[in-house]
Amino acid sequence: MQALQERILREGKNLGNGILKVDGFINHQVDPGLMDACGRELARRFGGVGATKILTAEISGIAPALMTGLHMGLSVVYARKHKPITMPDQVFLTLSPSHTKGRTVELIVSPEYLGMNERVLIIDDFLATGATILGLVRLARTAGAAVVGIGALIEKTFEGGRQALSSLGVPIEALARIRSMESGTIVFEDQS
Amino acid sequence: MQALQERILREGKNLGNGILKVDGFINHQVDPGLMDACGRELARRFGGVGATKILTAEISGIAPALMTGLHMGLSVVYARKHKPITMPDQVFLTLSPSHTKGRTVELIVSPEYLGMNERVLIIDDFLATGATILGLVRLARTAGAAVVGIGALIEKTFEGGRQALSSLGVPIEALARIRSMESGTIVFEDQS
Repeated sequence: MQALQERILREGKNLGNGILKVDGFINHQVDPGLMDACGRELARRFGGVGATKILTAEISGIAPALMTGLHMGLSVVYARKHKPITMPDQVFLTLSPSHTKGRTVELIVSPEYLGMNERVLIIDDFLATGATILGLVRLARTAGAAVVGIGALIEKTFEGGRQALSSLGVPIEALARIRSMESGTIVFEDQS
Repeated sequence: MQALQERILREGKNLGNGILKVDGFINHQVDPGLMDACGRELARRFGGVGATKILTAEISGIAPALMTGLHMGLSVVYARKHKPITMPDQVFLTLSPSHTKGRTVELIVSPEYLGMNERVLIIDDFLATGATILGLVRLARTAGAAVVGIGALIEKTFEGGRQALSSLGVPIEALARIRSMESGTIVFEDQS
């Protein structure tokens, strides 16, 4: 998506070691208009998958998932990383390695909001190694739900997430696909 | 706001001790259409305050703040509770007691996204004791910004947050104002 790629080139910061800082419009400060446009585009791409619910992970998945849900008319469930006191004792829980945090995090969903027969579209800010998204896939399957698509704002294609998810056999879409972040540059897949 | 009050009555759960569970449409599962309507209404109420930025706290402030920002054409900054590796070493940080967590949490904002001369509208999901919002006020003031309004989806008027914030002299708006949660009931301020 042109608007997102341009924004990444203009304001994204390549911090090295594959870390892309987009704190100015996605991850700490959020541009609601850009998120709305991204949500509209993800809704368009996944219009045919028959999703009944959107699943994401807190914290930075919330904005893109919410805007996608707005344009698809679907509820959004965000997996929690800490169980709040309002959640029942019996939950769906999986462990997911976070390589930006350097440790394992919990992903927790209440059975109240993810059930059998749901057709789940997973939306997140980044598709990198795919570890977080695979965690969400495990949660959906444990609940008896089917995963019908995976969407991200930004994919780092050199981290292999798409390959890790390919056996799921569902459409995978990313709005900005980064091929390389070597030597301080940011190169997209559709750049020569 | 009628739609929000009706949803709280229909799906909210009074768990006792003043804890209102709204995990089915705000805090774990989010209804994007309802959040959009709430954001539109908050944008209408704060249309005249001259805000230049919206400030909230992760996690559950993000959805209402994002939708308010969408309708006001303003960026949203969410205070982090843990400093990510993408944030500079020098940050604005304050401590805020969380009575649902029973401990103190950090609220952290990068100076990159909150500066002097900003006119900050604070948006959160709940206005209860006002502790989190007062933490956001301290962050804004430390940055040299002015707070120009405070908005919440749900106010628990019996917890005194409005009084705690009144000395700020800014408009305070909440879309559903709960007067009492005694004996398992939920009574709004505008109910007789």
